[in-house]
Amino acid sequence: MSDENRVQDLRAEIDVINQQLLDLLSRRAQIVSEIGALHTALGADHYDPEREAQMLTALEARNKGPFSNETIKALFREIFRASLALEEQQARAKIRVQRKSPDERTIIRLPDGTEIGNSVFSVIAGPCAVESYEQMDEVAEALSQRGVKVIRGMAYKPRTSPYEFQGLGEEGLQIARQVANKYGMFVVSEIMDKSQIDLFLDYADIFWVGARNMQNSFLLRALGKVNKPVILKRGLAATLEEFLYAAEYIVSSGNPNVILMERGIRTFEKWTRNTLDIGGVTVLKLESHLPVIVDISHSAGRRDIAKPLARVARASGADGLMVEVHPNPPVAMSDAKQQLSIPEFHAMMDEIVQLA
Amino acid sequence: MSDENRVQDLRAEIDVINQQLLDLLSRRAQIVSEIGALHTALGADHYDPEREAQMLTALEARNKGPFSNETIKALFREIFRASLALEEQQARAKIRVQRKSPDERTIIRLPDGTEIGNSVFSVIAGPCAVESYEQMDEVAEALSQRGVKVIRGMAYKPRTSPYEFQGLGEEGLQIARQVANKYGMFVVSEIMDKSQIDLFLDYADIFWVGARNMQNSFLLRALGKVNKPVILKRGLAATLEEFLYAAEYIVSSGNPNVILMERGIRTFEKWTRNTLDIGGVTVLKLESHLPVIVDISHSAGRRDIAKPLARVARASGADGLMVEVHPNPPVAMSDAKQQLSIPEFHAMMDEIVQLA
Amino acid sequence: MSDENRVQDLRAEIDVINQQLLDLLSRRAQIVSEIGALHTALGADHYDPEREAQMLTALEARNKGPFSNETIKALFREIFRASLALEEQQARAKIRVQRKSPDERTIIRLPDGTEIGNSVFSVIAGPCAVESYEQMDEVAEALSQRGVKVIRGMAYKPRTSPYEFQGLGEEGLQIARQVANKYGMFVVSEIMDKSQIDLFLDYADIFWVGARNMQNSFLLRALGKVNKPVILKRGLAATLEEFLYAAEYIVSSGNPNVILMERGIRTFEKWTRNTLDIGGVTVLKLESHLPVIVDISHSAGRRDIAKPLARVARASGADGLMVEVHPNPPVAMSDAKQQLSIPEFHAMMDEIVQLA
Amino acid sequence: MSDENRVQDLRAEIDVINQQLLDLLSRRAQIVSEIGALHTALGADHYDPEREAQMLTALEARNKGPFSNETIKALFREIFRASLALEEQQARAKIRVQRKSPDERTIIRLPDGTEIGNSVFSVIAGPCAVESYEQMDEVAEALSQRGVKVIRGMAYKPRTSPYEFQGLGEEGLQIARQVANKYGMFVVSEIMDKSQIDLFLDYADIFWVGARNMQNSFLLRALGKVNKPVILKRGLAATLEEFLYAAEYIVSSGNPNVILMERGIRTFEKWTRNTLDIGGVTVLKLESHLPVIVDISHSAGRRDIAKPLARVARASGADGLMVEVHPNPPVAMSDAKQQLSIPEFHAMMDEIVQLA
Repeated sequence: MSDENRVQDLRAEIDVINQQLLDLLSRRAQIVSEIGALHTALGADHYDPEREAQMLTALEARNKGPFSNETIKALFREIFRASLALEEQQARAKIRVQRKSPDERTIIRLPDGTEIGNSVFSVIAGPCAVESYEQMDEVAEALSQRGVKVIRGMAYKPRTSPYEFQGLGEEGLQIARQVANKYGMFVVSEIMDKSQIDLFLDYADIFWVGARNMQNSFLLRALGKVNKPVILKRGLAATLEEFLYAAEYIVSSGNPNVILMERGIRTFEKWTRNTLDIGGVTVLKLESHLPVIVDISHSAGRRDIAKPLARVARASGADGLMVEVHPNPPVAMSDAKQQLSIPEFHAMMDEIVQLA
Repeated sequence: MSDENRVQDLRAEIDVINQQLLDLLSRRAQIVSEIGALHTALGADHYDPEREAQMLTALEARNKGPFSNETIKALFREIFRASLALEEQQARAKIRVQRKSPDERTIIRLPDGTEIGNSVFSVIAGPCAVESYEQMDEVAEALSQRGVKVIRGMAYKPRTSPYEFQGLGEEGLQIARQVANKYGMFVVSEIMDKSQIDLFLDYADIFWVGARNMQNSFLLRALGKVNKPVILKRGLAATLEEFLYAAEYIVSSGNPNVILMERGIRTFEKWTRNTLDIGGVTVLKLESHLPVIVDISHSAGRRDIAKPLARVARASGADGLMVEVHPNPPVAMSDAKQQLSIPEFHAMMDEIVQLA
Repeated sequence: MSDENRVQDLRAEIDVINQQLLDLLSRRAQIVSEIGALHTALGADHYDPEREAQMLTALEARNKGPFSNETIKALFREIFRASLALEEQQARAKIRVQRKSPDERTIIRLPDGTEIGNSVFSVIAGPCAVESYEQMDEVAEALSQRGVKVIRGMAYKPRTSPYEFQGLGEEGLQIARQVANKYGMFVVSEIMDKSQIDLFLDYADIFWVGARNMQNSFLLRALGKVNKPVILKRGLAATLEEFLYAAEYIVSSGNPNVILMERGIRTFEKWTRNTLDIGGVTVLKLESHLPVIVDISHSAGRRDIAKPLARVARASGADGLMVEVHPNPPVAMSDAKQQLSIPEFHAMMDEIVQLA
Repeated sequence: MSDENRVQDLRAEIDVINQQLLDLLSRRAQIVSEIGALHTALGADHYDPEREAQMLTALEARNKGPFSNETIKALFREIFRASLALEEQQARAKIRVQRKSPDERTIIRLPDGTEIGNSVFSVIAGPCAVESYEQMDEVAEALSQRGVKVIRGMAYKPRTSPYEFQGLGEEGLQIARQVANKYGMFVVSEIMDKSQIDLFLDYADIFWVGARNMQNSFLLRALGKVNKPVILKRGLAATLEEFLYAAEYIVSSGNPNVILMERGIRTFEKWTRNTLDIGGVTVLKLESHLPVIVDISHSAGRRDIAKPLARVARASGADGLMVEVHPNPPVAMSDAKQQLSIPEFHAMMDEIVQLA
């Protein structure tokens, strides 16, 4: 037999072996899935390094080549990894915030019929913090001219230092409520602690969980009992997986109306305050049916890139954006550098409308 | 004239200007104080954003460079802020957690006279979570053999997923208390929400604020009213500055007994769970008088480097270390990969003792 | 005089002091600028911590209140910081890659008149690596149908491990050249070392400096002597400032035709290979007149978000995008997960065209 | 049957499948080897992407889950890759820099018998850059008093900006050589490009590859041909895995004498210039037999924590440390803030000696 014929024969044998390998890998995966389900029921971790070590040792003992033990172990580690991924994927499939079909989407409906997460691109805006009735009134008037329905009514500000301005408290909520009522808008306001829920129910239409509280599981679970939507901001160093699990705390506690907000992650880069993870936004839209909003103020920390970031937010497939607007940014009591003036806000809105 | 001489001349001129600036700032502060007193008499608010806006507008109109209007406004905002602080007669310039002299140190004293932050290197240890009385008893016995006085009694576990083991709750606290009493030890336990303070006062000797809650200002302030020490863990992406300000929330609320714990920061590196910021530990020891403890378990996420990390913690000038110890790590309900077995714990202790 | 009149008088005095402060700060800034220019001439650093320390000590000695020494030092540190920023801004103003006016832009012109950096959104595409003539031909045919003028002709691959596929070498360049000629396209290819310049001049139309070589100053300077455009990729942990300075190495050595490519930065996030810094793209467009291209393949590391990222790149104001396309991605010798198939490429192009 | 028993049964079935997989993989490898031999005889290429694509298509057609087609293809690609490696008869599975046994260690021997990587803790020191003969002489005298054998003789400085001081060039190498000869010391100097190798062979005893060049594979391979030791610095955002692979480029090219240097990684923290990854040092010592040195200057970027960091380096199990020393740090032409004065150097040495 010629060398070339021999090669053909050997290749045919390889094809058979490939099929046998496939069948074994599939069978193996089925068993692993079953174990995974039992582990989930038992509350155990899917990843079991000791068990893997035992299996590798057994394989090493049996291996007679020609693959080296190192190669065999590397190949089996790949198989283990694929099995683990399958288990985790199956575990995630049970997660409520995970998108189950391409068309699944959660739509948040506000009392007047306004929707977030449907086809309209939503804009949420307002000053960093409520400072006075006049300030809120001036901003709200401008927002209402552009059809903005949700205004920031921030009365409790999480601040790095205890000596910084911490917000007006309940007085701030009252002002926000009055102004929102005047213009037919809805108030979103940051809640800092679960003890504030009753207070906020009196004034706010949408609860807001800040980046520092993204993994405050007591607060998240308590908001799962509330009958109003919740905006959940991504922690400044939270992975997308952690972000979705934080949303899962709320949804699994009974409140399906969660809006995810990407606000930039902390990196080494200094020319922007944070690094807007726009790729993460596109992944969130794939992985979850929840609405996703892009915070173009905290991610940038500077107003001079608000226009392109607004365009980017819209192009990313996000359901809306959040932007800070102040009648007089230089004297703002917090985040002076990133708030837009009212004319800058109008210019930004013009950008988005052009894209529509 | 040479360039270097010219620089000398210009610097002398700067020195004169600095003095003039200082004199003007001082005179300005005196006037502002007087206005403040009058305002207090008139019952008016010290903070007047409108007046500030007017002053900034006037400065902008007069400014001919080379500083941009933005810079001028930023500088004057700093002056306004300093004046406001003065006016409100708060000695905010001095942060309480800041070290004032090289010898200043906060020493935490436990009821039996045990000290943390004094010359002895403290070891805090115990399992990741309380799982059963037997588990705690077995660990506590080993710890007590090595003179460990503070045991982890973790009954509420902050977890990424709502479907992971969340701790035994109050039962866990009870177990920890019983075991600690049996061996003459003290319980440190993580508090998740300020609503738990009374519960924890019944069982725990030291409060523990986890990384996810480092900037939960409501919890921090509430712990400032508690008469027991608090271990504050650094957030996984918190700067050292933010860490010290978080401690300041507790201390400025009335509780001086705060212990800082470095537990690794989140970076791109994958071979350790987090990146232990040992340089940060040395900086904290320079900047603050508070005791600093190194968490060698969460920073590494693997037990095979526990021995060198324990030596490192000791060599860094930290006041102690925290390590997770479990009777049977592979079956632990959380953090299985990083907990030391009891023999491994003894081996680690031998390392530290050799250094003493 | 009434208290209110007294307040008015004091406020008038404050207004005068504000003006005097402004004049002194402006004069101070002029002097500092002059010193800065001398320092630049002397090759010295602008930031001089010793000098700052001396000035603060002198101010402290002179200060008689009411501001505390801490406050005075804080205020003067702000003044120092503003002065330093001014100096650095003035130093940067001399940097060639810095945009001097809003309309300034560098336009790269290819031999057939194709422009990059002008109003048309450019697409650069091709497989991760040249693997064979057939592979390149199949891709190039598809690209040419959509008007793509620049094809990746990667013959030297920088790889993490020395045992991974390192590219076909000169044979790869030859294939790329042949295929580009057939379809009237231009070849861009990554150069690894300055010793390859002559070789590349024979085959490539555009030089490509990879992320690992972004700060290889010997290579950058050598490319400054070349009469062909250079695509410079941002290093995976390079700040925008470092990125622009790396471009400055090329431009200041004589080659003005540099294209900046953002390709994602390394962060803790794992669901994308890197984190696309789209905010950075918008800042680069503000700060520099050079064209900016967005690499949607390496930043994502996954093909399922190619469409939204292409829309995002376009919306950001970038001058184009780079995407990897392979006839059969699963068998690609490198980066299999992120290369688009040809139908996926067409779908992505449809997205961009819709936006135009 | 209980859940736990069911898990045991399923695991036993997995063990059988693992064995069957192993046997099939081994048989497959034998056949592939035989094909490889025939291919070699036929003069054909071992790598046949078309054949691989056919096999993957066949597997995809047969696959009925639970693994997705993507996962199956990924697993078989790993099998193909392992087979290819075997076929080409390269023992790639074994990375040379990987530690094979707990006692394995590479010891670098300098001409006078000085060893790095043996039991003595080595100190490498000297100014950031060679500035003058006098500067080098003053430092070298101090170093030699403390038994330091390797002096930094940096003549080419990689700098962020092209306008910063770039080193004295060959003159700097000459000065370093003269001074080293005077004190019986060895020169380590950073090489920037492979074209400099002959020049450096004339002056330097140890080559130094900087962080920016860690993945410059052309330079690494060229240094693999050199008969002198190489210090390889970790890239500022390189994972430990990438770091070891970079060392492998040198070692696999023929030069076993590589010293790894950890110099801090880039993170968000600002109070230190970089974040010293001391956990990474302990992992490197586990994973590799190469000597590991800790750069306490660049990692900190400030001299006031040099003493504790020196203790930390020693305690970590590293083989030595590198520190910058300058006769007059405030006037240094680069890195002024982090260089130690000579008295500070002596104080630091006293710290280390106390630990010995």
